[in-house]
Amino acid sequence: MKIDVLTLFPEMFGGVFGASILGKARDKGIVELNAVDFRLYANNKHNTVDDYPYGGGGGMVLKPEPIFAAVEDLMANTDKKPRVILMCPQGETFTQRKAEELAKEEHLVFICGHYEGYDERIREHLVTDELSIGDFVLTGGELPAMTIIDSVVRLLPGVLGNESSAITDSFSTGLLEYPHYTRPPVFRGWEVPEVLLSGHHARIEAWRREQSLLRTLRRRPDLLESADLTTQERTWLKEKLSETEKPQET
Amino acid sequence: MKIDVLTLFPEMFGGVFGASILGKARDKGIVELNAVDFRLYANNKHNTVDDYPYGGGGGMVLKPEPIFAAVEDLMANTDKKPRVILMCPQGETFTQRKAEELAKEEHLVFICGHYEGYDERIREHLVTDELSIGDFVLTGGELPAMTIIDSVVRLLPGVLGNESSAITDSFSTGLLEYPHYTRPPVFRGWEVPEVLLSGHHARIEAWRREQSLLRTLRRRPDLLESADLTTQERTWLKEKLSETEKPQET
Repeated sequence: MKIDVLTLFPEMFGGVFGASILGKARDKGIVELNAVDFRLYANNKHNTVDDYPYGGGGGMVLKPEPIFAAVEDLMANTDKKPRVILMCPQGETFTQRKAEELAKEEHLVFICGHYEGYDERIREHLVTDELSIGDFVLTGGELPAMTIIDSVVRLLPGVLGNESSAITDSFSTGLLEYPHYTRPPVFRGWEVPEVLLSGHHARIEAWRREQSLLRTLRRRPDLLESADLTTQERTWLKEKLSETEKPQET
Repeated sequence: MKIDVLTLFPEMFGGVFGASILGKARDKGIVELNAVDFRLYANNKHNTVDDYPYGGGGGMVLKPEPIFAAVEDLMANTDKKPRVILMCPQGETFTQRKAEELAKEEHLVFICGHYEGYDERIREHLVTDELSIGDFVLTGGELPAMTIIDSVVRLLPGVLGNESSAITDSFSTGLLEYPHYTRPPVFRGWEVPEVLLSGHHARIEAWRREQSLLRTLRRRPDLLESADLTTQERTWLKEKLSETEKPQET
């Protein structure tokens, strides 16, 4: 997979693209990651990439020319059109399902604005997707782009070893994870639940499932609707809900 | 404000902490940002920070000792207890409201796991908050921590200049932003809407408000419920909704 990121701050990407899973995927040749400074595509003598908004108001707006030119240059050597993804707060909220969808592509291009708005013609005539990672305000699209790239690249075949894939896949079961414990068995007087030391696999499995269900009920009851539960589990959860324990607000 | 991040990959943070708004806030002395390798607090000869889970199963679990030791060391010189924030998929979903809450603190400590789970005693006896940035799986807590730090630091007094604060504050109005346009007035045959070139401020304001309402209706109808709208606007939106245009699915 080839991933290009258009940004005015390419120096932000070095540490993240070089470390951990992304660095390994890059070293293995599974993914090619490039941070491209789109100021290099400014077609004016002052290298200007933004300008005042028509109609007035505060803030600056990213001009269409440099971004169109940069994306078209990146597309020049590829047969298949890439997904061109605009990072913006108005975009579709990114989820694991979208990560799985993007992981099937050959070429992704991310466009990261920084404080500024985008000229609407970029949105209308160049991009294929507009994505946001959540309802909060950031100084630029760089961190959301890195986040999406991390979640997509880890899904590519050959990237994750078995050791790292097991524990983190919270969302694949549709439930939140059960509590984990490791040594020491007693830390500052706080003990590991006895069942986990019992060696009794069926009891351990039952305890973990119960904890998973309870944690999901308390923290993310919205996930229970689409989770794969038995009738018995649904009944048990209803009982829990009617007991003194009220689900926590999120 | 002082922000410490516990991580096994401190080299991921250099580019992000040094660039743009975070770099400037640091240079101005408004925020102190440290990435701390908690492997330095491993109390064993192999510098081990994780171990096998009790009860079996795949994956590794971060041990309690190094993380308790690191957090307690970082707290040693401060009177007020810091907020200790665990980055995890089971956490509360981060929003702009949480960013505003955290921006009032003096000291934040982020704990970033990487593939592994956390020993439950960390969650129960050390952390004050558990946060997630969304329903997707990442290789570690580092990118979510950077994202939260960016959104918090930009709220600190003196960090943002006027030029950058205006356009990005989508969520403060409760509506998505209206379209922006800048020069050229015609780009590849695509024209800037005439109203924006009219110089007629009242018409421009009305157009922008209408565009904001329409975009929110189409993309994020959930935001309309809590948005500050006039009765006239609500009626107008109802009409729009019943017209041929159906709201897009997200």
